[in-house]
Amino acid sequence: MTKIILSINAGSSSVKISVYTAKHREPPNQLAEAQISGLTAPPAQLTYSRGDVQVLDHQEVKENVETQDDAFKILLDTFAGDQELPEISAKGDISVACHRVVHGGDYTTAKIITQDTYHHLERLTDLAPLHNANSLRIIKSCMDELPSALNVAYFDSQFHATLPPHVCTYPIDQEIAKNNQLRKYGFHGISYSFITRAVAEYLGKNQADLNIIALHLGSGASACAIKGGHSWDTSMGLTPLAGLPGATRSGSVDPSLVFHYASDVGKLSPSSTKELHISVAEEILNKQSGWKALTGTTNFGKIATSDRPECKLAFDLFADRVSAFIGSYYVSLAGKVDALVFAGGIGEKSDKLRAAVVEQAACLGFGIDPTLNAAKISNVVQDVGAKGARHRTLVCRTDEQYEMARGCADNDELW
Amino acid sequence: MTKIILSINAGSSSVKISVYTAKHREPPNQLAEAQISGLTAPPAQLTYSRGDVQVLDHQEVKENVETQDDAFKILLDTFAGDQELPEISAKGDISVACHRVVHGGDYTTAKIITQDTYHHLERLTDLAPLHNANSLRIIKSCMDELPSALNVAYFDSQFHATLPPHVCTYPIDQEIAKNNQLRKYGFHGISYSFITRAVAEYLGKNQADLNIIALHLGSGASACAIKGGHSWDTSMGLTPLAGLPGATRSGSVDPSLVFHYASDVGKLSPSSTKELHISVAEEILNKQSGWKALTGTTNFGKIATSDRPECKLAFDLFADRVSAFIGSYYVSLAGKVDALVFAGGIGEKSDKLRAAVVEQAACLGFGIDPTLNAAKISNVVQDVGAKGARHRTLVCRTDEQYEMARGCADNDELW
Repeated sequence: MTKIILSINAGSSSVKISVYTAKHREPPNQLAEAQISGLTAPPAQLTYSRGDVQVLDHQEVKENVETQDDAFKILLDTFAGDQELPEISAKGDISVACHRVVHGGDYTTAKIITQDTYHHLERLTDLAPLHNANSLRIIKSCMDELPSALNVAYFDSQFHATLPPHVCTYPIDQEIAKNNQLRKYGFHGISYSFITRAVAEYLGKNQADLNIIALHLGSGASACAIKGGHSWDTSMGLTPLAGLPGATRSGSVDPSLVFHYASDVGKLSPSSTKELHISVAEEILNKQSGWKALTGTTNFGKIATSDRPECKLAFDLFADRVSAFIGSYYVSLAGKVDALVFAGGIGEKSDKLRAAVVEQAACLGFGIDPTLNAAKISNVVQDVGAKGARHRTLVCRTDEQYEMARGCADNDELW
Repeated sequence: MTKIILSINAGSSSVKISVYTAKHREPPNQLAEAQISGLTAPPAQLTYSRGDVQVLDHQEVKENVETQDDAFKILLDTFAGDQELPEISAKGDISVACHRVVHGGDYTTAKIITQDTYHHLERLTDLAPLHNANSLRIIKSCMDELPSALNVAYFDSQFHATLPPHVCTYPIDQEIAKNNQLRKYGFHGISYSFITRAVAEYLGKNQADLNIIALHLGSGASACAIKGGHSWDTSMGLTPLAGLPGATRSGSVDPSLVFHYASDVGKLSPSSTKELHISVAEEILNKQSGWKALTGTTNFGKIATSDRPECKLAFDLFADRVSAFIGSYYVSLAGKVDALVFAGGIGEKSDKLRAAVVEQAACLGFGIDPTLNAAKISNVVQDVGAKGARHRTLVCRTDEQYEMARGCADNDELW
């Protein structure tokens, strides 16, 4: 039996959907992929490809697209309206819709969404208002518009359920920590799960024997120490704010900084809604910081190649923070590291950042090969390391949508 | 010409004063040392030694000691009232009083305190209310009670004036950062300055050629990468809160954590005064966290030797965070590291912590010698490293009061 799976990935400024056909316990096949981007920098743009055919490339969207949910509906109509995608001729053809949800709280596995799960996720949203709310709205739409589909939530935090207590505990009042669910959760886990399997396969190792330092570097950026195939430490924390800076995120800063940044930072931000409580502080550190604040652009490609002093500063700052995590996790893994793995938009595309980071970490036995590093990254896993280096350096084209669809194909509850 | 120098070190729960005789550009000689401890856990206790004679050992103080300034006055009377310390028979005998001040803002050198300097320090106190206020009150007392003495402020931040821009910049709005003086300052600098000179001397190297990873681990704890004798990176930030956890400090946590810890954390804490503005958040993270929150005690010696699960957790958590900084700074120094140096109360006394940390960092070429590590630390610098390890491991008995007195002896403005 073949099922049609939609893999939905709602980011802060875009929504991406991939369509797969899948059979039980077989790798899914991608039929089409569509994305609406530029939600926070209108006009929104639609990109659509079917198989190897690029149907639309950053075409301006005529309709008003204000929310991730608006974008989702347009993408759904795009698939259903495409004559040459007969697999989705009606919305009823979709059997499974899987959703990337950033914060899963204590959930350690993907969850089929029932009314109960949905309400639990609503409550979790208070822990990560800036991150979960968009996914939740799309899940609601799917429950309304695709009544015949099963909805499945995949959590960015679930891969990190294996963090040991001395890593995931914050040294704060433990009763309050317990009651308010305050601990390191970690994120980008769907990506790290893909990376772990892909790299193990590439190296011909069992996942259970794989130790890597993985870097998911995009407009949100994190690092992860993976030990025996499981998350052992990661840079994000209670929320995705901690750790590395990102496009608009400060990353870890002195926790008292924001109280010296502006007054009343504990108040609700004007962008809060009745359901969504965001403090001014969280708004400042998540949305008004990062390399946007340093350079004026969120485009790391431009920053990496610019000669402007503020771009050089942002580049050096980012490379320094990334190398620092490599050092930390190298020690945390006691030097038993099969590979350093770059992933995410910047990890895949910025050979300049890879070179800077790996050169800084040369003392640990990593090395970059300039020719391999300059080559186009077209394989799922590609070697960019210097021959003879003590540890390998790889690039992985991580694919969160595929990871979720694969999870659905393997999930006996769905078949 | 010989001068009497008082070196005053006001901590959060104690005040320590050392008395020196000094000649211009010669190493000072310590005459006596006195300390009042237990300010936050009454009754306060007075310890006093003159040369090798222990005059008082944790004797309960009869007077009411509520503030650091109360303690200071009792200590001053102790010296002046001691017949066998003829060098201070009257307060007028004191030529120089030097003061450890935590936050020096943009000051890059010690400052003789004038009305102008004093007012500048008052303004800085808003950046570090929990840390500077006690020193300021004592400085005020000295200006009143020792009119013939010159007062000199030594800043814990001044050693870190050499942090490079990509290290000391926070990725936040740069105009606000500039206006509000928001950057990484770093602290424990008086100690790191002592450590740098003592270790260079021990290794027979010029300070300008010395690269070390230094750890000042006490009830406040920090790490510092020292490159060419200068601070290159350090774990504390805008305030001493960032970085490693301490006795009551959380260290770095997700900057959004405190907003999920309690409501109204941006409000002024009840312990604020008219001059002193402390947010509830800063109070929680500085005073109600750390290993006190995990274990119920601030005594790391007890934690390290206890079998209680919460003590083991606190120990493992601390060792993990310390090793993480060793990894980071090893990379930051490109592996060119002359020694790993332990200092501070815990760094000096806890051979168990040293062993745990160094064993975790064995992959970087550090190693501990169990016999040397178990020996009493009685020299200023003492080797605890394994023979044949690629890098040395040392313990340094840092001495902030001596460091300030030495600075005074060398300061031509005072002679």
